[in-house]
Amino acid sequence: MADEPLTSSPSAPEAPRRDDPAEHLAKRVEELPSADAATVLGELQSDQAAEVAEALDPQTAADILAEMDATLAASVITDMQPPEAATVLQYMDPDDRVDILEHVAPDLHDRLVGELKPADAADVHQLEQYPPDTAGGRMTTQVTALYEHITVDNAITTLRQLSKELEQMFYVYVINRHRELVGVLSMRDLILADPQTHLSRIMIRSVRSVPASMDQETVAQLMRKYGYLAMPVVDHNNRLLGLITLDDVIEVLEEETTEDVQKLFGAGAEERLNSPWHFSFRSRVWWLVINLATAFLAGAVVGIFEGTIQTLAVLAVYMPIVAGMGGNASAQAMAVAVRGLAVGAVDKKLMRRVLIRESIVGLLTGIVIALITAAVVLLWQGNPMLGVVVGLALVINHTLACSTGAGIPFIMKRLGFDPAQSATIFATTVTDVGGFFAFLGLATLFRSWLMQ
Amino acid sequence: MADEPLTSSPSAPEAPRRDDPAEHLAKRVEELPSADAATVLGELQSDQAAEVAEALDPQTAADILAEMDATLAASVITDMQPPEAATVLQYMDPDDRVDILEHVAPDLHDRLVGELKPADAADVHQLEQYPPDTAGGRMTTQVTALYEHITVDNAITTLRQLSKELEQMFYVYVINRHRELVGVLSMRDLILADPQTHLSRIMIRSVRSVPASMDQETVAQLMRKYGYLAMPVVDHNNRLLGLITLDDVIEVLEEETTEDVQKLFGAGAEERLNSPWHFSFRSRVWWLVINLATAFLAGAVVGIFEGTIQTLAVLAVYMPIVAGMGGNASAQAMAVAVRGLAVGAVDKKLMRRVLIRESIVGLLTGIVIALITAAVVLLWQGNPMLGVVVGLALVINHTLACSTGAGIPFIMKRLGFDPAQSATIFATTVTDVGGFFAFLGLATLFRSWLMQ
Repeated sequence: MADEPLTSSPSAPEAPRRDDPAEHLAKRVEELPSADAATVLGELQSDQAAEVAEALDPQTAADILAEMDATLAASVITDMQPPEAATVLQYMDPDDRVDILEHVAPDLHDRLVGELKPADAADVHQLEQYPPDTAGGRMTTQVTALYEHITVDNAITTLRQLSKELEQMFYVYVINRHRELVGVLSMRDLILADPQTHLSRIMIRSVRSVPASMDQETVAQLMRKYGYLAMPVVDHNNRLLGLITLDDVIEVLEEETTEDVQKLFGAGAEERLNSPWHFSFRSRVWWLVINLATAFLAGAVVGIFEGTIQTLAVLAVYMPIVAGMGGNASAQAMAVAVRGLAVGAVDKKLMRRVLIRESIVGLLTGIVIALITAAVVLLWQGNPMLGVVVGLALVINHTLACSTGAGIPFIMKRLGFDPAQSATIFATTVTDVGGFFAFLGLATLFRSWLMQ
Repeated sequence: MADEPLTSSPSAPEAPRRDDPAEHLAKRVEELPSADAATVLGELQSDQAAEVAEALDPQTAADILAEMDATLAASVITDMQPPEAATVLQYMDPDDRVDILEHVAPDLHDRLVGELKPADAADVHQLEQYPPDTAGGRMTTQVTALYEHITVDNAITTLRQLSKELEQMFYVYVINRHRELVGVLSMRDLILADPQTHLSRIMIRSVRSVPASMDQETVAQLMRKYGYLAMPVVDHNNRLLGLITLDDVIEVLEEETTEDVQKLFGAGAEERLNSPWHFSFRSRVWWLVINLATAFLAGAVVGIFEGTIQTLAVLAVYMPIVAGMGGNASAQAMAVAVRGLAVGAVDKKLMRRVLIRESIVGLLTGIVIALITAAVVLLWQGNPMLGVVVGLALVINHTLACSTGAGIPFIMKRLGFDPAQSATIFATTVTDVGGFFAFLGLATLFRSWLMQ
C-alpha cells in the first residue's frame, strides 16, 4: 500500500487515510485494556479484525483474542495467515487456546496445532480429550502444586519463582509423589506457618475436587453454592490435572444463561448478536418448521369449528384474545419455573406445591381477565352470552396455561432434558389448542343463545 | 405439646412423632453445610422454617439464613419471635443482615434494629443509606485496610490477628490517615517483600475502586469484564467504605438474569418458585391486563375484516398460523438481542448491522415457512390462491417480526429502559396486528380469486 503512486494533490486531505487502516487501528487498540480491545475487535468483520490482529504484536493479540467470545475469536483466527495465527495461539494460556481451537475447522485446526511447539501441541491434545462443556474442557492447566514433603520455607521460595508465571494464586495444592491431590493451603496459611514445617503437617486434608468429566454447569453451581474460589480438577486416579477458578464460573453461568434464554425462545444456543445471517438462518429455521407443525395443530382445531365461525364471524375477533392471553399467562409461569430450576434443585414436593399454586394463580388471573373482557364484549358487541362464552374460555385457558407453563419445565428436567429447551413450544401448543377448543367448543354448544 | 395427655395405646407407633418436629428437623439441619441447610429450610413454609430457626443455635441459624434468598430469609425472620430474630441477625455479616432487613416490614424492621447492639444498629443505618441495588447496598464492610506508613512485618502481624475474623483475604487495601484509599497489595506481594519496607513503598498505587452509589449491575459487569476478584467501594471523598467480592458478582448476575428472563415473559422480577400464590397473582395480573389491551388491538384488526371471514370462514384456520409463526420468529430475534445487550454494549453501527441481518433472516425463514405452508394449503384445501395469500402474509410477518424483535430491545436500551422489560408485549402486538392485517387484508383484496 505504501508504494502506491501518490495522487496529484499534494495537500490532499485524505492523505492520512492512505496509511493501512488496520495498522492505524492496531496502534489505537494496543493502548486499551485487553477486554476493551476485545470489544472493539468484536465489532469488526472477522477479516478486518484478522488484519488488525496480524498488525499487533503476538502477545497483545493473544491477550485480546483470549478476552473475546471463543466463536468470534475462532473466526478471526481462521481469517489470519496460519503461521501468524499459530504464533498468536502460542502466546495464549492453554485453556484459552483450546477454547478457540475447538471452534476452528478441522483441517485448519490440525495445521495450527502442527505449528505449535511440541509441548504445547501435546497440551492441546491432552485438554481436547475432555468435551468443552466439562470440568476438563474448561480448566486451566496452570495450577500451583507442591509436593507434601517440602518445607514452608522451600514452598515460599518456589512460589517466588513461579509468581511471574501464575497470575492468580490463592490456594496452593499439595500432591504426593504420584501427583495425587492430598491437601490444600491458602497463602495465608503459608504466611502464618513456621518456615521449617513440612507442608504435609499444616495442609488441610479435606480438599474438595471435581472429576475432569463433570459437566461444567454442575461445577459452576457447586462452586457458586458453596462459595469456592477455585476448584481443583482430578482424573479418575485423583491425580491433579488443573484448576477451575471463579471467573470461569461466571463465564459458564453467563454462557448457560444465554443458552437457556435462547433455547427458551427457540433461537440456537450458539447464536450471537454478530453471527452472520446464514448462521442465524440455519439455526432458527428448523425450530420454526417444528413450530409450524404445532401451529397447524391449532389451525386444525379451528378447522373443526369452521361451521360455527361461518355463522358467527365475530368469534374470529376473540380467537386471538383467548389464545394470546393463555400464551402470556403460560409464559409468566414458565419463566419463574425455568429460573427456579436453573438456580435450585428439583423435588417432587416442591413440584406439587408449585402446580397447586399455579392452578390457583391461573384461576384467579383468569377470572379477573374474563370479567374485564366480558364487560368489553357487552359494550362493544352488546351480546351478553358472547361475554360469558369468552370469559369461561379465558378462565379455562388461564388455569390450563399456568399449570402447564410451570409443569412442563419440571417434567423436562425430571426426564433429564434441559428445562428450557423447547418448553415454549409445548406450552403454546397447549394454550392454543386448549384455548381454541374451549372457546369455539363453548360457542358451538351455546350457538343458539349466541345468535340473538 | 409435651404435657398433652397420652393416648390409650401404650405402644402407639406414632410415639416418636410426638417430639417437636421443628426440633427434630433442627438437629438434622445443623449437620448439613449451611448452603444445603438453606435449601432444606427454603422448601418449608416460612412459619415452619421459623420454628426450625428458633430451635437452632443463633450462629448456625445466622449462617443458614445468610445463604437463603433474602426475600425468603426475611419471611422466616418475620415469622420468628422478634427477640430471637434479632439475636440471629446479630450473628450475621453486616451486608447479609441489611439484605434481609430490607425485605422486612417497616415496623418489624425498626423493632429488630432496636434490639441490635448500638454499633451494629449504626452499621445497619450506614449501609441502608445506599439503595440495595447499588455498590454500597451490596458491599460488605469487612474489608482489610492497613495504614500506608506501617511496615510489612507489622502488616503481617496485624493480618495474623485479623485472620480469624476475615474469611476471604486476597488483597489488602492501603489507606492514609484520612481513610482515603491510596493503594493495594496482594498477599503474594506481602510474602515476597522485605519485612522492614513500608507499605507505601511496595503498594500498587493505581487501585481501581467504585463509588457506593454505582448500580450493582455496572459493578458486576466491570468486575466480570476485567476479571477483578474484589473491588473496593469508596464514598465521594475516596474514603474506603467496603468491599465487593466475586461471589457478590455471581449473585448480582444471577439476580439480574432472573429479573431479565422474568420481565421478558411478564412475570415480576421478584417472584420465586416458592412465592405465595397471592404474591404471584398480584405481580402477574397487571401485566396480563396490559396484555389484554394489546390483545384487543389484534382482535380489532380481525374485526375490520369480519365481512371477509363471514364469506370465507377457512381464513380463521390460518389466522393463528400466520400470527403465531410471526410471534415465534420475533421471539428468536429478541432472545439473541436481549442476551447480546445484557453482556455487551449498545452501538449504532451494531444496531444497523443487526437490523439488516434480521431483515434478511426474517425474509428467508419467511420464504421457507411460506413454501411449506402453501404446499399444505394446496393439499388440504385444494385452493392455490389461498396458499399464495397465506404464504405472502407469512413472508411479510416474518420480516416484520425479526426486525422488530431485534430492534425493540435496542430502542428500549437507547431510551434508557431495561431492554427486557415489556419487550415481548410490543413485539407480539406488532406480529399479531401486522400478521392479521397482512393476511386478512390480502384475503380481502383477492377475495374473488379465493372464492373458487
